[in-house]
Amino acid sequence: MRIVIIGGNAAGMSCAARARRNDESAEILVLERGGHVSYASCGLPYYVGGEIAEREDLLVQTPRSLSAVLNITVRTGSEVVAINPAAHTVDVRTAAGQETVEYDALVLTPGAKPFIPDIPGIGSSFVSTLRTVPDADRVTELARNATSAVVLGGGFIGLETAEALAIRGLKVHVVDLAGHVLPMMEPEIAAPAAAQLRELGVQLHTGVGATRIIERTANGTVDGSVGKTDDSANGSSMDGNSIPNSSHAIELSNGEVLPADLVLVSIGVRPDTAIFEAAGIRCDRGAIDVDEHGRTSMPGIWAAGDATLSTDFVTGARRPVALAGPANRAGRLIADDICNPETARPIPAALGTSIIRIGELTVARTGAGRDDLKRAGIQFHAIHLEATQHASYFPGAIAMRMLVLFGDDGRLLGTQIVGGEGVDKRIDVFAAAIRSGAAIDDLIDEDLAYSPPFGQAKDPVNLAGMLGENVLSGKLRLWYAQELADVARTDLILDVRSPAEFATGHVRGALNIPHTEVRARMDEILDAAAGRPIAVMCASGKRSHFAYRILVQHGLSARNLSGGMHVLCDALGDGALNR
Amino acid sequence: MRIVIIGGNAAGMSCAARARRNDESAEILVLERGGHVSYASCGLPYYVGGEIAEREDLLVQTPRSLSAVLNITVRTGSEVVAINPAAHTVDVRTAAGQETVEYDALVLTPGAKPFIPDIPGIGSSFVSTLRTVPDADRVTELARNATSAVVLGGGFIGLETAEALAIRGLKVHVVDLAGHVLPMMEPEIAAPAAAQLRELGVQLHTGVGATRIIERTANGTVDGSVGKTDDSANGSSMDGNSIPNSSHAIELSNGEVLPADLVLVSIGVRPDTAIFEAAGIRCDRGAIDVDEHGRTSMPGIWAAGDATLSTDFVTGARRPVALAGPANRAGRLIADDICNPETARPIPAALGTSIIRIGELTVARTGAGRDDLKRAGIQFHAIHLEATQHASYFPGAIAMRMLVLFGDDGRLLGTQIVGGEGVDKRIDVFAAAIRSGAAIDDLIDEDLAYSPPFGQAKDPVNLAGMLGENVLSGKLRLWYAQELADVARTDLILDVRSPAEFATGHVRGALNIPHTEVRARMDEILDAAAGRPIAVMCASGKRSHFAYRILVQHGLSARNLSGGMHVLCDALGDGALNR
Repeated sequence: MRIVIIGGNAAGMSCAARARRNDESAEILVLERGGHVSYASCGLPYYVGGEIAEREDLLVQTPRSLSAVLNITVRTGSEVVAINPAAHTVDVRTAAGQETVEYDALVLTPGAKPFIPDIPGIGSSFVSTLRTVPDADRVTELARNATSAVVLGGGFIGLETAEALAIRGLKVHVVDLAGHVLPMMEPEIAAPAAAQLRELGVQLHTGVGATRIIERTANGTVDGSVGKTDDSANGSSMDGNSIPNSSHAIELSNGEVLPADLVLVSIGVRPDTAIFEAAGIRCDRGAIDVDEHGRTSMPGIWAAGDATLSTDFVTGARRPVALAGPANRAGRLIADDICNPETARPIPAALGTSIIRIGELTVARTGAGRDDLKRAGIQFHAIHLEATQHASYFPGAIAMRMLVLFGDDGRLLGTQIVGGEGVDKRIDVFAAAIRSGAAIDDLIDEDLAYSPPFGQAKDPVNLAGMLGENVLSGKLRLWYAQELADVARTDLILDVRSPAEFATGHVRGALNIPHTEVRARMDEILDAAAGRPIAVMCASGKRSHFAYRILVQHGLSARNLSGGMHVLCDALGDGALNR
Repeated sequence: MRIVIIGGNAAGMSCAARARRNDESAEILVLERGGHVSYASCGLPYYVGGEIAEREDLLVQTPRSLSAVLNITVRTGSEVVAINPAAHTVDVRTAAGQETVEYDALVLTPGAKPFIPDIPGIGSSFVSTLRTVPDADRVTELARNATSAVVLGGGFIGLETAEALAIRGLKVHVVDLAGHVLPMMEPEIAAPAAAQLRELGVQLHTGVGATRIIERTANGTVDGSVGKTDDSANGSSMDGNSIPNSSHAIELSNGEVLPADLVLVSIGVRPDTAIFEAAGIRCDRGAIDVDEHGRTSMPGIWAAGDATLSTDFVTGARRPVALAGPANRAGRLIADDICNPETARPIPAALGTSIIRIGELTVARTGAGRDDLKRAGIQFHAIHLEATQHASYFPGAIAMRMLVLFGDDGRLLGTQIVGGEGVDKRIDVFAAAIRSGAAIDDLIDEDLAYSPPFGQAKDPVNLAGMLGENVLSGKLRLWYAQELADVARTDLILDVRSPAEFATGHVRGALNIPHTEVRARMDEILDAAAGRPIAVMCASGKRSHFAYRILVQHGLSARNLSGGMHVLCDALGDGALNR
């Protein structure tokens, strides 16, 4: 049997390696159009930043090592230009010419290509993507001679690279069309990450796009702004950004011009499915359609990785998931389906669990976000929680902020967390819980490892379960930052922080009574409420929960601000407050 | 309603706090025989070591704060000496005398007392336990004037305190009756922890107990060795331990005498159930018997924490679980059962998830160990895995060693891990998986967060699933370090490490052929095997798995050493090897 694999990275190489362990006699051929296989795609930003010091560390496997250990034939520089399913062949173009290769099983793991916006100057020499090892070489070389960089796209790779370039001493701007960087995260989870980037010296421009890239030639004149005047790029200070005469630049949709000795384009990827569609393989929304074993519509042809559609575990939606873990898993399971179809496990539906380190912070998500659920028509509850990663009395305790979404039946739907140490752990526990079909109150029972350096006797995961159970059972009614304007009209806002905290900023018209005085000063509260419901709040939602329970047991109508002032400020900005 | 709670720490205070949130009108009274409530029991070793610098950090709550926030009455120095279930009263003894207190609901959370061995000299002033804040004060004071310390008991608190004392510059010995320190861990998981302790300068004495404690008075004479001669404690060097004339000492069951200016007794805890049994409350094996809502045999009386029996999640065995997390959880759920019995969730069965930091290492377990399963008559498979916590190409990658036990049906039964960063994460993911009833191969599908600083595209958890599935499906046959003697008699041992690694030590009679040469040198292997089965091995079991697959697909009978040379050396010692 000859297994031919198109594309030699995550999904493709996992498939090849497993196929060999499944079948010592198979002929396994990997065709890679680039110059490297099994390279550390996710490590490229860290190589640019110097954290990964050695280029060779990026090359996890080589054609030579794959041959020696697994007897796999890898041909780099080999681009498949056509697939002929009827003949069971592919046409391969190499530097030496074109040839036709036969297959018994064909696996499509071509990955995806960075999306390049069609704006003037995009072809300039100082514009790059960061997807391959040569890309990393180019970006590193450009960074060596640059003082400024503009990153288009505030997603994972964009922000990791922005930080890397800032570490190298460049003045870095990040531009994203969305309302906030990390658009795959909810605003109150992304906000601390944005603040961290600013602390690292990175300037953020959201809700704007790039309109053209302006190359300056050696003699200081402007070049490359095809079809546009260069009036707006005359080197004068625009919106505070002074453009040195020697710098290239980029113009934004709001007219702002930013210096840009280096432009990194990182606004998403697109599978290149033209040859697959031409071969009659069913594609959908630009990606290859596969069944739960990775089989395409064409017998004998499988596909996995960034070029394929995955089923979302929570919503059932079909979408491409450009993540390394699911790609590796799918590649391996396809090898099983090729070699042992009767026992092969299905490829699991995707939770889209993902994580990014930004400075001292970690931001992570798993499962569905609010918009995913709304699109799918799934009703949900949301809770916010603030808790430290380990015992608060142990040195180094840092609060993490957690947003947990769950259904009317309690089923966990999604979680997002921002914080420092220990965020990665909790997101993985949530990922395991969501996959197991757990309900929010099942989290109360999670028996997690506790000792002071590692956790809390009531772990943040347990606390989320307790809080969620209170909501699910109706014992706790919440209100949300986004409802502030309405709530302020109808409710007495009762802020139970200390007077000193209250003085640093509070919601207009709020009554301040510390949580420890709520019982004693109940008459004051009743007077101020004058029959209105009471919207309680504190810094994080914890102290106000105590107050909330006192109020409702006094027969009052009350609700508690989810996530407290911290989430409110990040969701609405400080403008919502009196100071 | 008056709720009376006996004992004001983890279980008791969780119960009190939840009861208040459940019922604003209840009278809640906590009777604590000691001087503190809600103190950081698990933080005491870190206070002794100076890592927690401030004594007040140990006092998480005070009677005053509990009164202010929760309107809970806490009486310290109040020992309950009798319970009268018929009258619904308890008799309380305080410094001021004795009184009788009525209750509507009574919650027993007395904790447990350290077990003190009955050996001569145990009452000496330099002998202490470490269970309470006054204990921590005493140990800290003793350590200030000590140059040597002996810790009796190599469990969690013993080892944490041993490290703390070593950090303070004391010469520390740990003594444990079991065959290795951390006896709740399997030998191959505990061994790296023992090595780490030795690196920290701690000397370990296993398989021995203490027989007497020898106090030296100011003038150098020996005192306190009741009923024994002092011949063996004459200050001469015994087994290499020179006893300064000024030091106290301790004698072990092997005759060895160790210097001991400070003796810490940490050989387990025992509930003190005398007054509960006297009141007719059913106890079993020295602990209070409770149902799944924490109800004792006596109506109106609940119990939780170290003094009660828990049901083991995996084996169903009934046993006391002296861990803070389950105690907190149970206390909270009891408050629900008292206030809202119709909707209260049951107290979850215990996984016994636990963790300890030792130097740079982390050691953790969840679920059942080998002995637990054998006692319960549950058949199991065991796999060993070695993997780094994050991408191997990212700086700081450290291998962790994982032991996973699962049933014939694949059901996960238990996991133990030793390593550095990331061990706490994986044990928690396993804990969640075990609780959800997951099978070993479900771990393949866990969609965990990956980026280079946090994980691997195939996380160690996924790898365990893949390895386990290979075993479960019969695709992989393993052999174990403990079988070496038998295997060496019947099999050709094929060591597929590099010749350089082989030269550093190997199993007597093993044939060395690197894994990359197995295909080419198959004839050599066949000759050497001469019809015998082949037992493959490498350093960790990974390379030998490649070799194993080649061999079995050549029709040979083979098996792979689980965990490789690393586990073999830790399980058997280096004596098993030729060097």
